[in-house]
Amino acid sequence: MTGGPEIRPLALGELHGSLADPLLDAMTFLNEVTTRYPDAISFAPGRPYEGFFEPEHIQDYLDAYLDHLRERGLGPEAVRSTLFQYGPTKGIIPDLVARTLANDEGLDVAPEALVLTVGAQEGMLLVLRALCATADDVLLVSSPCYVGVTGAARLLDLTTVPVPEGPQGGPDPEAVAAVARAVRERGQRPRALYVVPDFANPSGTSMPLAARARLLDVAAAEGLLVVEDNPYGFFARSPGERPTLKALDRRRQVVYLGSFAKTCFPGARLGYVVADQEVESAGGRRTLLADELAKLKSMTTVNTPALSQAVIGGMLIRHDFRLRKANAAATAFYAANLGTMLDELERHFPAPLRRELGVSWNRPEGGFFAVLTVPFDADERAMERCARERGVLWTPMAPFYPGGGGERRLRLSCSSLTVDQIKDGVAALAHFIKDQAAAG
Amino acid sequence: MTGGPEIRPLALGELHGSLADPLLDAMTFLNEVTTRYPDAISFAPGRPYEGFFEPEHIQDYLDAYLDHLRERGLGPEAVRSTLFQYGPTKGIIPDLVARTLANDEGLDVAPEALVLTVGAQEGMLLVLRALCATADDVLLVSSPCYVGVTGAARLLDLTTVPVPEGPQGGPDPEAVAAVARAVRERGQRPRALYVVPDFANPSGTSMPLAARARLLDVAAAEGLLVVEDNPYGFFARSPGERPTLKALDRRRQVVYLGSFAKTCFPGARLGYVVADQEVESAGGRRTLLADELAKLKSMTTVNTPALSQAVIGGMLIRHDFRLRKANAAATAFYAANLGTMLDELERHFPAPLRRELGVSWNRPEGGFFAVLTVPFDADERAMERCARERGVLWTPMAPFYPGGGGERRLRLSCSSLTVDQIKDGVAALAHFIKDQAAAG
Repeated sequence: MTGGPEIRPLALGELHGSLADPLLDAMTFLNEVTTRYPDAISFAPGRPYEGFFEPEHIQDYLDAYLDHLRERGLGPEAVRSTLFQYGPTKGIIPDLVARTLANDEGLDVAPEALVLTVGAQEGMLLVLRALCATADDVLLVSSPCYVGVTGAARLLDLTTVPVPEGPQGGPDPEAVAAVARAVRERGQRPRALYVVPDFANPSGTSMPLAARARLLDVAAAEGLLVVEDNPYGFFARSPGERPTLKALDRRRQVVYLGSFAKTCFPGARLGYVVADQEVESAGGRRTLLADELAKLKSMTTVNTPALSQAVIGGMLIRHDFRLRKANAAATAFYAANLGTMLDELERHFPAPLRRELGVSWNRPEGGFFAVLTVPFDADERAMERCARERGVLWTPMAPFYPGGGGERRLRLSCSSLTVDQIKDGVAALAHFIKDQAAAG
Repeated sequence: MTGGPEIRPLALGELHGSLADPLLDAMTFLNEVTTRYPDAISFAPGRPYEGFFEPEHIQDYLDAYLDHLRERGLGPEAVRSTLFQYGPTKGIIPDLVARTLANDEGLDVAPEALVLTVGAQEGMLLVLRALCATADDVLLVSSPCYVGVTGAARLLDLTTVPVPEGPQGGPDPEAVAAVARAVRERGQRPRALYVVPDFANPSGTSMPLAARARLLDVAAAEGLLVVEDNPYGFFARSPGERPTLKALDRRRQVVYLGSFAKTCFPGARLGYVVADQEVESAGGRRTLLADELAKLKSMTTVNTPALSQAVIGGMLIRHDFRLRKANAAATAFYAANLGTMLDELERHFPAPLRRELGVSWNRPEGGFFAVLTVPFDADERAMERCARERGVLWTPMAPFYPGGGGERRLRLSCSSLTVDQIKDGVAALAHFIKDQAAAG
């Protein structure tokens, strides 16, 4: 036993700067408020609906994957080793994911160009770490922007520069070019652009097809890689999906971040990166960017849990490598919910009233989110008051704007609610907004 | 479709510096050689023996955990949500882990002080990131040192300074004090010491009890936190285990990294951090270091797969929260293997011969590793030649020495071999060593 008094508390200010960053504080606060109002109707979390999940299915998926290994000729020892041991850093199911991407997205991806990750979040961290050698290697981000990517950049002490989202959704290609040039003029290197082209988090908007092609041309001209994040692409409210940036990519300029959190389930924490870019060493040796990401991954999580990969791999097998089809019911559910939410907003705020109050919202074509503009600061205090007085939770938008802005906007997510909850929730939220407007 | 030629290959030299680091290259090379000689007897990987794993057990563990949730009063929807959804960043089984730590290690840990991580590797990354605000916040590492921690530091552009392992195992406490002072004298801040006190990777050695107490006193005096990593502590060759540093810690000066990779199985990729240190903000608000680590974790992997936690949680339940007892057969297996390996070395290199050749080895009291000193450079080329000519793989030690050294040492791991493989492997290795000595 060693004695002596306890050490003094560690000073938060002497820990890494990200821990005192308002962004992380905001996220912590939101989680904390959500916990404090467990019975509130929550338009806050971007989580999938749970009704389609059954614990009984896990064993079936696992069996499907193990049978698949046996059919490929693996003996009992090799099957055991695949499931229980450390495995290859890039993952054990890249071939299954590649087959699914071919069917669902029309993507022709070599399994070697894939890295399985612990959610898309780890993929982001690895891609940012690989591409940005110093704080002078700048990441452009569409603004408003998913906090996961600005947070990962903060953790690595990287510089992000916002590019405002255009009126049609996605960053305006000409604005991307202008920001890239401004970054270069101040002696930094614009390295990549992070974008969610389909049903973005938090704005819910999507890039039109013409803007996608133009964005790729602009990025190529400016020497920017494009980091495309696509968690919500499946969930369109109406047909006529647009191809992903990666599907349009003929120059190997797009690094694609995928996730099974919404198309399978979040509890597996399984994502992947498609990184088919070539990397050349000074000695002329060529690898794929995926191989370099795997080297970094050996220093973050060593490898992605075989258990998660086996269960998701089994799901892919059981669904004949077609998650779009497997998610037909979920897609219809989300589309109906989003439609209900937008209809209810319309019902509670008819055109004359919303002009009078200064209330408006966007009308995403799919996904989990819509954005509401209100005539008061939709900040943490307002959010907590709304929870307390009206039993409704939502997400303030301001933390999503790296360059400031969005103070009077809030994000509404309807992905994990029932139709009745949406109706009751929008009614209660409308009361709150009218109260606030009257008080203001 | 957008046209234009493919982008030029990315220059490795313009990616993050860690990717061109010899350490990562060495690890990649070793993996590659291992893949090229699949039939070699491999003393290289520090992986657990697979004979105790059965795929059929997974469902039973999962059932045990789900029953546990139901017994705690969770309804079907809450059970479903726990298993399939996003969950708390600190994890869903801290209470089960705390009970196990109390039984197995005599550690009295509040569940609030625990963070479940994707292997101990993610824990390391989070702890280093939290504690080191800038490159001037230095991490002291016992040398030779596990590459996972030097690699994580490299990923974050942190500075590590080696402290040589003493003759008895573990860093010499007086050397720690001297290095800490030297770091301070050059204007940097020695922040923490990373150490594996039990059956260290790669050296296999353990710290004597007196040195443990002294190390904690020295660290407290120098203002250093101690980061204790304990993947192998269970696997003693003889009784008389020593308490962990965390069990001796009365000052809350030890951050403890735990892993279920060796005591349960690696394919769950489940580890944890015990971080009961207090953190105080400028405004006087107090949190636990565990809470701050969780904030960072939301930017690396969001949360640890619920699936992995549920299966390992079920294992803990099935084994009555006593993994030491559950691992009795595994412990006996590893002890017998280590004994066999040391005996076989003795048989092939009796004292006169080993004096003549300049061969020696240490005699760890447990764990997975021993270190062999040979009369030639035990580098990558020698390792590959040994694989080709004698069908035996091992690990060069030099990459484990951050400050240089270990050129004529190699690490032997016997944890995943059978007794016959060990006998054949040591015989073949002895041939190789004698050949090399004769040629040199």
